[in-house]
Amino acid sequence: MDVINRYVTIKSHVDGAPQESDFELKATPLALSLDPGSNEVIVKNLYVSIDPYQINRMKSYSSSQKNSDFAVGIIPGEAIDTYGVGKVVASGNPEFDKGDIVAGLLNWGEYTVIKASGMLNKLNHMGFPLSYHVGILGFSGLTAYAGFFEVCKPKKGDKVFVSAASGSVGNLVGQFAKLFGCYVVGCAGSKEKVALLKEKLGFDDAFNYREETDLKSTLKRYFPNGIDIYFDNVGGEMQEAVIDNMNINGKVAVCGVISEYTDNEKRAAPRMIDVVYKRIKIQGFLAGDYLNNFADFLSTTCDHLRTGKIQPLEDISDGVESAPSAFISLFRGQNIGKKIVKIAEE
Amino acid sequence: MDVINRYVTIKSHVDGAPQESDFELKATPLALSLDPGSNEVIVKNLYVSIDPYQINRMKSYSSSQKNSDFAVGIIPGEAIDTYGVGKVVASGNPEFDKGDIVAGLLNWGEYTVIKASGMLNKLNHMGFPLSYHVGILGFSGLTAYAGFFEVCKPKKGDKVFVSAASGSVGNLVGQFAKLFGCYVVGCAGSKEKVALLKEKLGFDDAFNYREETDLKSTLKRYFPNGIDIYFDNVGGEMQEAVIDNMNINGKVAVCGVISEYTDNEKRAAPRMIDVVYKRIKIQGFLAGDYLNNFADFLSTTCDHLRTGKIQPLEDISDGVESAPSAFISLFRGQNIGKKIVKIAEE
Repeated sequence: MDVINRYVTIKSHVDGAPQESDFELKATPLALSLDPGSNEVIVKNLYVSIDPYQINRMKSYSSSQKNSDFAVGIIPGEAIDTYGVGKVVASGNPEFDKGDIVAGLLNWGEYTVIKASGMLNKLNHMGFPLSYHVGILGFSGLTAYAGFFEVCKPKKGDKVFVSAASGSVGNLVGQFAKLFGCYVVGCAGSKEKVALLKEKLGFDDAFNYREETDLKSTLKRYFPNGIDIYFDNVGGEMQEAVIDNMNINGKVAVCGVISEYTDNEKRAAPRMIDVVYKRIKIQGFLAGDYLNNFADFLSTTCDHLRTGKIQPLEDISDGVESAPSAFISLFRGQNIGKKIVKIAEE
Repeated sequence: MDVINRYVTIKSHVDGAPQESDFELKATPLALSLDPGSNEVIVKNLYVSIDPYQINRMKSYSSSQKNSDFAVGIIPGEAIDTYGVGKVVASGNPEFDKGDIVAGLLNWGEYTVIKASGMLNKLNHMGFPLSYHVGILGFSGLTAYAGFFEVCKPKKGDKVFVSAASGSVGNLVGQFAKLFGCYVVGCAGSKEKVALLKEKLGFDDAFNYREETDLKSTLKRYFPNGIDIYFDNVGGEMQEAVIDNMNINGKVAVCGVISEYTDNEKRAAPRMIDVVYKRIKIQGFLAGDYLNNFADFLSTTCDHLRTGKIQPLEDISDGVESAPSAFISLFRGQNIGKKIVKIAEE
């Protein structure tokens, strides 16, 4: 059977904030059958992850492309690979059968033809919605879990600040930190998000950074006894203000730097004299370095989900054609929680 | 017996680069005898340490004053305490006898009256010149040793860069790193210093940063395969250029930030996107947190000194009246190695 496979590409490299005009929806015929002897697998994509870091892959050059295996450059005109969940519709690979639900490296499209081994795993959904496996039970969840527990190495009672706290990773860091026994404050970019953090996700407090004019004073108000741990998703001025308000032996886990992603000249300039005298550690990390923690993360998070101690926060768009606007919305602060595109019904 | 005790004070807080006019040499009579029952000790100061971080103590406010026990504010008009070596001339404390050589918290003066316990220890000079115990065998040495081995956690073959490499700490970091089996490049501010690093101290290479216009390119030239460890004594643009040239899992030990010490607006603005994708760790530290490593440090360093594997680098001024100019010279890059004031002959 032949289908028309629609998928999203970039027309050329994207070096500023992404716009609808940077993307193109392509459509090509695809035979849903494989030659005898082929080792390929064809997956019908169901849910795919939409992540801010992909902007670094779309640039003509970024540090990401040189220094990480998973964030190499995206070639204009070609499909944009991403983590996702799908269903096998044809398989020449003995490890996979037609009908298997799988997770792995899919793309912003309706179908993925997978040639190489190791890019795909059978998914045990464990009774959870498939979308969870793209977000809270996928890399966003692992990023939050490993970043908080392995990089920040928290102690009970630590005072924790999370930026972009209603984002895919930030909301989970806050929830993990609360369950662990920390005092947690988040910041986000709207009243609605702030209310959600406090009322639904159990943050001790939260504020809308867009309403604040002096971030140092703001943080002093929310942390009169200082910050022990900062989970940094944004970089820039917020990081500077945090360092100013940090306690001795404070830790900054740098997960993302959205302020730099679309403005190459934007920088965080933390006061290094504070870094010295407060013995602060600023540590960048990638979830991919913590795959050994995946089993532990998954088991813990599934338990919390089953007992209702942790809330999934998903923001799902419909249809492959919504991928560009879903992606663009991340840079405009329009998403609430994990941004996912639902490509098709199971 | 009464003597005239001359000691240096600041006239008022010093908030920029220090000048001769900021200091005053005072002279007051001091009785070299103690009341019966007194627990005090009077020390004749012999060698005292002159350190850049003291500028932070002289300011009207600095992070140092709030966040560390040893770098609290200096009160204008009062003696400036510092680490030094001296000889007991009177003692009401049963732990010390007249004639004992001691090390501890003395001051920029000819005599120190020590009231509190715990500020002084008897010194076993182990056959080394007393001045060594103020520098290479004192806190400068411990800073280099703990900063390099405990904070940087080097591996043999790591490519190490040291700024202010002819300074009190930097020259030792380079020597420790070479002995450990690293590739070491240092930067300094004159041809003479660069020659000394390469010819006397065994650095693999060195350059004069004042002759360079583009530090990123300079570092790329000296480290074509990237930097694994940066021992940062200066902050500012150099730190930015290092982050740009750093390898995956690179480590920055922030020991000092001389660029910020006399210019509160000067900042390092490293590219955080590099910090994330290269998983870089930037860690501030203070030697005082590594007192448990002192015995190990001392034994190792003494061995290296005895076998000639490590060279002491001292820059000694004569007389208490030279303390202000000795201190000021640190901010003008005029010292070569550990700056010490010799107050008196033993």
